Amino acid sequence: MDSVKIGIIGGGRIGKIHADHVRRLPNVEIVGIADLFGGEPLAAWCYERGIPYYPSDGDNFISNPDIDAIFICSPTDTHVSLIRKAVKAGKHIFCEKPVSQLLLETEKAMEEVSQANIKFQVGFNRRFDHNFLRLREHVQQGTIGEPHIIKITSRDPNPPHLDYIRSSGGIYMDMMIHDFDMARYVSGSEVESIYAQGNVLINPAFRECGDVDTAIVTLRFENGALGVIDNSRQAVYGYDQRVEVFGSKGSVAVTNDHPNTAIISTAEGVMSDKPLHFFLERYEKAYELEVRMFIDSIIQDTPVTVNGYDGLQAERIAYAAKCSARLGRPVRMDEIYQITEA
Amino acid sequence: MDSVKIGIIGGGRIGKIHADHVRRLPNVEIVGIADLFGGEPLAAWCYERGIPYYPSDGDNFISNPDIDAIFICSPTDTHVSLIRKAVKAGKHIFCEKPVSQLLLETEKAMEEVSQANIKFQVGFNRRFDHNFLRLREHVQQGTIGEPHIIKITSRDPNPPHLDYIRSSGGIYMDMMIHDFDMARYVSGSEVESIYAQGNVLINPAFRECGDVDTAIVTLRFENGALGVIDNSRQAVYGYDQRVEVFGSKGSVAVTNDHPNTAIISTAEGVMSDKPLHFFLERYEKAYELEVRMFIDSIIQDTPVTVNGYDGLQAERIAYAAKCSARLGRPVRMDEIYQITEA
Amino acid sequence: MDSVKIGIIGGGRIGKIHADHVRRLPNVEIVGIADLFGGEPLAAWCYERGIPYYPSDGDNFISNPDIDAIFICSPTDTHVSLIRKAVKAGKHIFCEKPVSQLLLETEKAMEEVSQANIKFQVGFNRRFDHNFLRLREHVQQGTIGEPHIIKITSRDPNPPHLDYIRSSGGIYMDMMIHDFDMARYVSGSEVESIYAQGNVLINPAFRECGDVDTAIVTLRFENGALGVIDNSRQAVYGYDQRVEVFGSKGSVAVTNDHPNTAIISTAEGVMSDKPLHFFLERYEKAYELEVRMFIDSIIQDTPVTVNGYDGLQAERIAYAAKCSARLGRPVRMDEIYQITEA
Amino acid sequence: MDSVKIGIIGGGRIGKIHADHVRRLPNVEIVGIADLFGGEPLAAWCYERGIPYYPSDGDNFISNPDIDAIFICSPTDTHVSLIRKAVKAGKHIFCEKPVSQLLLETEKAMEEVSQANIKFQVGFNRRFDHNFLRLREHVQQGTIGEPHIIKITSRDPNPPHLDYIRSSGGIYMDMMIHDFDMARYVSGSEVESIYAQGNVLINPAFRECGDVDTAIVTLRFENGALGVIDNSRQAVYGYDQRVEVFGSKGSVAVTNDHPNTAIISTAEGVMSDKPLHFFLERYEKAYELEVRMFIDSIIQDTPVTVNGYDGLQAERIAYAAKCSARLGRPVRMDEIYQITEA
Repeated sequence: MDSVKIGIIGGGRIGKIHADHVRRLPNVEIVGIADLFGGEPLAAWCYERGIPYYPSDGDNFISNPDIDAIFICSPTDTHVSLIRKAVKAGKHIFCEKPVSQLLLETEKAMEEVSQANIKFQVGFNRRFDHNFLRLREHVQQGTIGEPHIIKITSRDPNPPHLDYIRSSGGIYMDMMIHDFDMARYVSGSEVESIYAQGNVLINPAFRECGDVDTAIVTLRFENGALGVIDNSRQAVYGYDQRVEVFGSKGSVAVTNDHPNTAIISTAEGVMSDKPLHFFLERYEKAYELEVRMFIDSIIQDTPVTVNGYDGLQAERIAYAAKCSARLGRPVRMDEIYQITEA
Repeated sequence: MDSVKIGIIGGGRIGKIHADHVRRLPNVEIVGIADLFGGEPLAAWCYERGIPYYPSDGDNFISNPDIDAIFICSPTDTHVSLIRKAVKAGKHIFCEKPVSQLLLETEKAMEEVSQANIKFQVGFNRRFDHNFLRLREHVQQGTIGEPHIIKITSRDPNPPHLDYIRSSGGIYMDMMIHDFDMARYVSGSEVESIYAQGNVLINPAFRECGDVDTAIVTLRFENGALGVIDNSRQAVYGYDQRVEVFGSKGSVAVTNDHPNTAIISTAEGVMSDKPLHFFLERYEKAYELEVRMFIDSIIQDTPVTVNGYDGLQAERIAYAAKCSARLGRPVRMDEIYQITEA
Repeated sequence: MDSVKIGIIGGGRIGKIHADHVRRLPNVEIVGIADLFGGEPLAAWCYERGIPYYPSDGDNFISNPDIDAIFICSPTDTHVSLIRKAVKAGKHIFCEKPVSQLLLETEKAMEEVSQANIKFQVGFNRRFDHNFLRLREHVQQGTIGEPHIIKITSRDPNPPHLDYIRSSGGIYMDMMIHDFDMARYVSGSEVESIYAQGNVLINPAFRECGDVDTAIVTLRFENGALGVIDNSRQAVYGYDQRVEVFGSKGSVAVTNDHPNTAIISTAEGVMSDKPLHFFLERYEKAYELEVRMFIDSIIQDTPVTVNGYDGLQAERIAYAAKCSARLGRPVRMDEIYQITEA
Repeated sequence: MDSVKIGIIGGGRIGKIHADHVRRLPNVEIVGIADLFGGEPLAAWCYERGIPYYPSDGDNFISNPDIDAIFICSPTDTHVSLIRKAVKAGKHIFCEKPVSQLLLETEKAMEEVSQANIKFQVGFNRRFDHNFLRLREHVQQGTIGEPHIIKITSRDPNPPHLDYIRSSGGIYMDMMIHDFDMARYVSGSEVESIYAQGNVLINPAFRECGDVDTAIVTLRFENGALGVIDNSRQAVYGYDQRVEVFGSKGSVAVTNDHPNTAIISTAEGVMSDKPLHFFLERYEKAYELEVRMFIDSIIQDTPVTVNGYDGLQAERIAYAAKCSARLGRPVRMDEIYQITEA
């Protein structure tokens, strides 16, 4: 394939981010952005960028023969049905995470995807971050030997609106799912068992939503390594995204990016600026790269970096975490596999 | 009390370290060092330092009326009986950690200690480290608000001899016990429940000793905070001792000390020296300070920094960790309290 | 002015960089790129980007009534004549540094520019670097009080071709001129006197070109502060661009940017990647910002960030440095002012 | 020689520091501390440490046959006469810096020292600092290739009393002399020429004392390398002691030590504590090491680390700096050599 024609479904923040990155790529064209509630603002946004088409109806859009690949950026509960339609229409698919909040639905959808001759990539953008790429490179090159301990810290600068929390699927499915994917990505191993515990320490409203705002999860990997992930919905000093892999020959650790390197020394102490504020700043280049690599996979017919199985496994771990937190005991991943096989 | 006369029981490495620090303090005198197996080498070592007395029999030594305070630096299984004798003789006691490996023994001994009118300090030297002192100061001053997440990393540069491992009481009682004390120290809260998992990743011989060499433990504190401790018996880059406390108003983190600040930049990359190698280097000043503060507590009749209850609680948490690892489930601290009350 | 139409003269590396940044800006259009030696490769490059016009003759191009602003990116010895033509044609001008290598020429050109009603910006891109912007902000806010010592380190990863060296004007005019501008920018003061010494330490061929490859220059500023700049044509570990301003209330220092935050700890030591390799990587965003701010100055009719006087002063200091190095003595800036007044 | 008996002349701060370090060394005994103005306070200080002798008369003290080595810690203007007496009495000598403030006096004294069969060490304590030792090791091992640029920053946290300033010999002789020694030490080369400029930016009283409080000096070394030293009498953030050596294969840089590694991240930014406050804190271990190595040189009859020639050369460079500052031009070291030969 020489060039790729893109249709985007969902004209919200993430749909627009992808659109702006796609626009700058050579050999790519955006056919249009479909959004049920886009209306005039989306039309104006598209017009300024020369994107000619902005329908409210996604269904016809998916079957548009001018489109080679669909970006699914609509609300999570619409993903599976859109994936099915896109598969039927033979389109390549870039789908935002999670694929769905219902594990059986995701499994079935991924089964259909795997039987189709299309590229399917899940939006785990952090895999494309310069820090995590370098960390994984070192792990894979054997710089640190066999991984023994994986530590992931992931904290947001401030909590989302409660409306969002209510429909988010909870901290494990909405927020920690990125870290579950990261754990698989950097350990090079599947998770064997998981123990999750959370608490409401920031805002009691989380409890009313049936959720927690702070959580620590420990993992045991099939290769024997142990892991831990900590999440908080509110780190007042900014977005905190760190990973450390410790192994038989040493460790590799990546920490946050900062807006500048300025260090101030005064009679009060030594000071510097906070880390980059949130995901838009921290992962700006990662968003660009994930889209570029997806397009490259289509054009060159090569495997994608994050496939449907990766999307499914992250959801399975998130589901196991939810079970563990509810049951108050460690949960083995084969318990989850059996449930869904039944 | 104007000056303090010290008797040391156990002339091994840690006994000698304490002796050398005590010697330099004003208003303190070392009466002697008792060691069943000290023999000529210990005699020579004492002679060079002007320490006049080095008996093989500890029992008479303890009741020596010239001695005000006893440092118990002998093997762990001798601690409780020595504590009892010292209590009876009315001596102040500095006891190396752990008090014992048998929780009931420790409880009884601490009960007796608490009823005697003596100072009793446990050798949790890390509380006196300049980094952890500064970290705790910030937590107590409220710099980071309410603690939400406590993270402790504690890795040795290389494993001890297997002979040591066999009688050590296992990783939770021998190594992680320091971190359990640190967890209580920096969180300002008791532990409510614990989940431990370990693995043998460094040397299969640990398995034969019934032990693990790598472990991750999660904690829930009574104040609601969550914690995690990771231990490894072998960090090839040196002693790794870091603590982070994250809270409602920010975080405070301390990392390792280094032998120098030199940074080398070449065509290959940017390099610096490894952290200080092991506990003798890292905690040199902490060992000095813990002894000094113990002597100060005696002279000024003020409370010690690490008392018998602190020693007992750390052992209880270690015991809970062992139970959790064996049972494969989280263990509540009140389960431990009930067992020993029964 | 609502939108700006740009003509670029010089289709080399820097001309193309500016073209690519200009293209992405809203309300800007590139009319064409003129280059005497552009030929088919430049034509192809323009075609791929939708730039419709790529003449070999710059003179007619400058007077093209469709063009509002000229970017002068051609060899240094063409700058002054192009500036004159652009001034006559009433175009705004963005001119790469240095304006010329002949101080009297630059003075006359800047005189003409200052009497015309146009925006004129010199390409001192480093003023737009996120680190130096933050540093200067702190100096201006008074964070560090009155500046006392200004230290600038500026080292290239590898020397340019000797052909380039021969016509470069020498290290002070070609390379350190950026640092002279930085010195004025961050000190908030004019230079009063200068002492320069250089040496040939990297490659004897520099001597044959009448140049040096390593130099240290000290400055005395009119506000009493002292400064030092060190330059090397070859830092094997990458582009080294650091500034420190020390003052009565403290210091602010900025150091290099790195491609990632990964830190590797092994038995050999602690390692990280080298700084960003060279100016294209380090100043990527600064190049973007300098162009954007120039366009903004035109559209909003506000002063530019680096004007003709700034360009002239940097050249005067560079000339004083050359004189100092030749004479082997400090040179006062008023010596330079008098020469050119004569 | 199996053991060394020490006599200290001068019971001020530095004399006491050396006494306390000497006391802890094996095979060394302090015979006494002579101080004209010591009186009862010094007597009490000595008594508490078991130092039996504290005469007010230094002359008889020097010729005391019980003493093997003399530490000269008295005011600078007494050094040369004490050195002569000690040389005549055949004692080894440890002399605080500078040897004297009169270059010809120092030259003659060093001539006499060099003809005697004694150890003579100058108190350039910074050579024994863990950071500078590591830096020099790298330079000598060739890690950074041939040195091209040497940068030394040396700033005090606050200025000394004006009384001290008046008799100090000025910033170059009193403060920067340490850095001149460091320059020779880390470059492995003699200085060829020097250009000094200073200013009064902190306190006008320095001007009244005929001194400056801020200075930048550039050096050219005989091996072709260039150097720069900056000094300030007042860095409000603490003692600032950094060195960087840049060469053909890279750079090695050492920076300050800090009291702890704590990093605080809050909504305001990222903060840490200031560097160690002043020389007593920063060079505590260096003072200990310089004394130990001096004693080792005596016992093992090996060369000292800082000999009389090192002391003399540092003074010559300081004198050249003073001349340069007064004359307003660079001064060649052979100008200084000729003056004193005349």
